[in-house]
Amino acid sequence: MSKQRLEGFSDGVFAVAITLLALDLAIAGPGHGRLLAQLGHHWPAFVAYVLSFFTIGIIWVNHHGLVSNIAMVDRRLMFLNLCLLLFVVALPFATSTMAEYLTTGGQDADIAMALYGAAFAGMSLAFTAIFEWSLKEGRSLHALSRERRPAARVRFTAGLAMYMAAIGLAFVNPYVSLAIMGITAVYYVVERTPQLSTPAADEET
Amino acid sequence: MSKQRLEGFSDGVFAVAITLLALDLAIAGPGHGRLLAQLGHHWPAFVAYVLSFFTIGIIWVNHHGLVSNIAMVDRRLMFLNLCLLLFVVALPFATSTMAEYLTTGGQDADIAMALYGAAFAGMSLAFTAIFEWSLKEGRSLHALSRERRPAARVRFTAGLAMYMAAIGLAFVNPYVSLAIMGITAVYYVVERTPQLSTPAADEET
Amino acid sequence: MSKQRLEGFSDGVFAVAITLLALDLAIAGPGHGRLLAQLGHHWPAFVAYVLSFFTIGIIWVNHHGLVSNIAMVDRRLMFLNLCLLLFVVALPFATSTMAEYLTTGGQDADIAMALYGAAFAGMSLAFTAIFEWSLKEGRSLHALSRERRPAARVRFTAGLAMYMAAIGLAFVNPYVSLAIMGITAVYYVVERTPQLSTPAADEET
Amino acid sequence: MSKQRLEGFSDGVFAVAITLLALDLAIAGPGHGRLLAQLGHHWPAFVAYVLSFFTIGIIWVNHHGLVSNIAMVDRRLMFLNLCLLLFVVALPFATSTMAEYLTTGGQDADIAMALYGAAFAGMSLAFTAIFEWSLKEGRSLHALSRERRPAARVRFTAGLAMYMAAIGLAFVNPYVSLAIMGITAVYYVVERTPQLSTPAADEET
Repeated sequence: MSKQRLEGFSDGVFAVAITLLALDLAIAGPGHGRLLAQLGHHWPAFVAYVLSFFTIGIIWVNHHGLVSNIAMVDRRLMFLNLCLLLFVVALPFATSTMAEYLTTGGQDADIAMALYGAAFAGMSLAFTAIFEWSLKEGRSLHALSRERRPAARVRFTAGLAMYMAAIGLAFVNPYVSLAIMGITAVYYVVERTPQLSTPAADEET
Repeated sequence: MSKQRLEGFSDGVFAVAITLLALDLAIAGPGHGRLLAQLGHHWPAFVAYVLSFFTIGIIWVNHHGLVSNIAMVDRRLMFLNLCLLLFVVALPFATSTMAEYLTTGGQDADIAMALYGAAFAGMSLAFTAIFEWSLKEGRSLHALSRERRPAARVRFTAGLAMYMAAIGLAFVNPYVSLAIMGITAVYYVVERTPQLSTPAADEET
Repeated sequence: MSKQRLEGFSDGVFAVAITLLALDLAIAGPGHGRLLAQLGHHWPAFVAYVLSFFTIGIIWVNHHGLVSNIAMVDRRLMFLNLCLLLFVVALPFATSTMAEYLTTGGQDADIAMALYGAAFAGMSLAFTAIFEWSLKEGRSLHALSRERRPAARVRFTAGLAMYMAAIGLAFVNPYVSLAIMGITAVYYVVERTPQLSTPAADEET
Repeated sequence: MSKQRLEGFSDGVFAVAITLLALDLAIAGPGHGRLLAQLGHHWPAFVAYVLSFFTIGIIWVNHHGLVSNIAMVDRRLMFLNLCLLLFVVALPFATSTMAEYLTTGGQDADIAMALYGAAFAGMSLAFTAIFEWSLKEGRSLHALSRERRPAARVRFTAGLAMYMAAIGLAFVNPYVSLAIMGITAVYYVVERTPQLSTPAADEET
């Protein structure tokens, strides 16, 4: 099986999911109050759009790096990849539900936020599973040495831990939870995470 | 005509269809009861999402295997492929209709479930037609020997038989029908089906 | 500029447009009459779905053939291609409008059908413009000889003439108009149209 | 990291966004007045569709040219590219909001038009940032000479200036603002802008 088609299909799913996020940006339209007031009222939808957009973007960049280092494609990888995409595709739903409940600001905003965090945690878990798959002998073009694996695992676990914390904090204060997920995204964008495809780059960091 | 563009177009359609499945995950939102109750009430939508997602995923994995073994692309293959995609693209509609009728649980849940099964059977039939097309002299890179064709046909027929059974059982009990389609999907994911592109792998099973 | 990206982008647009057609398949759902009655009532939506699906499919197959024979990509080709895609992308709208007005069967079904025919005629015109572009010296890998051009133009004009006839007949009887567009699609699928990429194949027909 | 996947993902996002534009073309349907009257009433939606379609098309053509000249892909380019796509993906929302408020023609049509202009200005800014990124030593296959950079920057700035003017004029007369954005699009289509991938072509203009 070819890596190229795995990438093509995954890129297609990432591209559609990231574009569908914008379907949530709809406002009520003329006759429902001033436009600026409506836009202001729906601020969670805009924050959620940008946050989900960059998180899918980060996952895509990392998926890119991980897959470019893969030496072979088997059925197990394909299904692990499908599990990752299952969460990616569900993200527009989780995003719009969270934005809607945060906009009304009332009951169940905590559960909606926890659901949103769970979608992120699911992506993070599935991505970790693909990473673990890639460690087995002969599956990667540039094998990650055993000494450097713990460091890589810490990074993956850190992201997952942030999302778990966000899920827990959703029940304390959903806005704090949202802020933590935003900080995690900014951290991933800013930090020069090791390019998974060229493990040597890790040492330069 | 190039195989690459056939794959690119098909991957695009698979990717969009698999992502549109998630459009059915919408809930009524704030003011329509507790969120967890809404999510629980819509369980058929979530089950249907996961089931349709993995079924499209399986078809994609098998399509991938079958096409990678094809030696030439002619107009007939293109139109057989369009027939397969016709059912793939209709799946989000069949999925949402089934989920909606199973959620209310009343009248016509049987017909909606049979319709869902029919979409799966249609995909299965179209896929079999592409497989039969590939058997003719010179159309495959690695021809499947005549002795091994009956075994391959049994596998295809088995999947179709499961979907036909699911259609019939929909009128007895739609939930049993749904379970059978779920079992079929799990079977296809778990089983090490012969990699169609490398027929020799079949003997290892 | 590379042909590969022109193909990749066009394939993406074709794939999304062909999948969005299925968004029109929605029915009113439980509580709006029996499911079979609803499906029967919406027969124009299903006929329109299949017709639009195969017409986009045919355009894609022919686009594929035409572009694979192109030797160079310039800005003019890119914008002609955008004009073709403009009509492809508008087809889901034209399809759903036509289906809706044909379902109610009343006033303006003629105009809706003419609009649908106009979208097809637009695609046909834009495709012809790309074909004419490709005839200029040095733009094709296998130049179509001057003697064989009139025959190719007759084919293109025949398709356009059918769509123009369908537009006119829409005001007499929209169902006859729909039937003519269906016959045109079946003709294009069945007929062994000359593979535009290998002009020599034309003589074999 | 490979340029091919950056292109594939971007093309996917462009293709989905350009197709989603047509989702705004929905009309109220039978029972809401004559069809031609409805189509006429929604003229801003059709003008906005064509304008946004060709603007995304132009950005895609230029993105194509710029990326084909890029020698390497780093994380910074990936995130600049994500910023460009963030605005591309938001365009269907900005388009439908503008069209809706221009259709009613009343209050807030100015703000909706300014929002639409802002989306265009955002795309323009992000594109300029990618261009500036590409100027650094070793990042382009054919480096743009220092003498020719000011001319290129003037072109980029001119487009951005037009969009800024359109934002300002939205508060004077939204229709004039729309016309200016239309003229900008026509200018970009007609003008033989320098092919960014082959800077030598610039001198021929």
